[in-house]
Amino acid sequence: MKKVDHIGIAVQSIEKALPFYTKMLALTLVKIERIEEQGVAVAFIDAGNVKLELLEPLHDASPIARFIQKRGQGLHHVALKVEGIEQRILELKSKGVQFVSEQPKLGAGGAEVAFLHPSSGHGVLYELCDHSTGKGVKENE
Amino acid sequence: MKKVDHIGIAVQSIEKALPFYTKMLALTLVKIERIEEQGVAVAFIDAGNVKLELLEPLHDASPIARFIQKRGQGLHHVALKVEGIEQRILELKSKGVQFVSEQPKLGAGGAEVAFLHPSSGHGVLYELCDHSTGKGVKENE
Repeated sequence: MKKVDHIGIAVQSIEKALPFYTKMLALTLVKIERIEEQGVAVAFIDAGNVKLELLEPLHDASPIARFIQKRGQGLHHVALKVEGIEQRILELKSKGVQFVSEQPKLGAGGAEVAFLHPSSGHGVLYELCDHSTGKGVKENE
Repeated sequence: MKKVDHIGIAVQSIEKALPFYTKMLALTLVKIERIEEQGVAVAFIDAGNVKLELLEPLHDASPIARFIQKRGQGLHHVALKVEGIEQRILELKSKGVQFVSEQPKLGAGGAEVAFLHPSSGHGVLYELCDHSTGKGVKENE
């Protein structure tokens, strides 16, 4: 866990939220990507040392749609950059950390990701995010 | 707005939350500070490229206490590093951004800070954070 990879932000509409980031804060939109298996569109914004990821639900069954229904738009998760995600999951489990799902999944930007349970993070949803495996890149090609 | 300075996290107890960060995630606690005028104790954690700030309410009237009562522990705000905070506030206001308070206040680590209204941030509470003025340092000395 050497650095924060990105901050995930739930929005109802990327189109509506984006001008705040690009015009008002003068940050740069890198790309927009659809991740069908997670039911979200993701806008990647370069905030210098970290990325901001705007997460828009593609349908009502999306976890992001349920989050917005329950809590409104806002901060959703913090992703920690790791290498060797499967080993890191085992290490954290051995220290007592609980995971939402212990099997890494394909996430935004072709990364492998796994979410810690918010009860372990004292109310914060943390994601482990591994860009080093190349698995996601192959699946996206 | 060149980078994210820190991520603010509301916790009921720094003492209870800290082992998750230092023992499980193996991050480093830099220092703990009390900010009486904001009614919080703040634990600064080094997460490599950004800081994590654990915010514990000092009393029930603290904004952090009210946040936890309403929403539970969790992600509270994202602070953007700026220089010349008063000029940046004026620029953002001219673009239509609303502020919780337009007058910078003394924040954690001796910075001058101002919070954007969450309605401008589409549900996210953004802070402008200026470490360059030296005002906070003088007041703390």
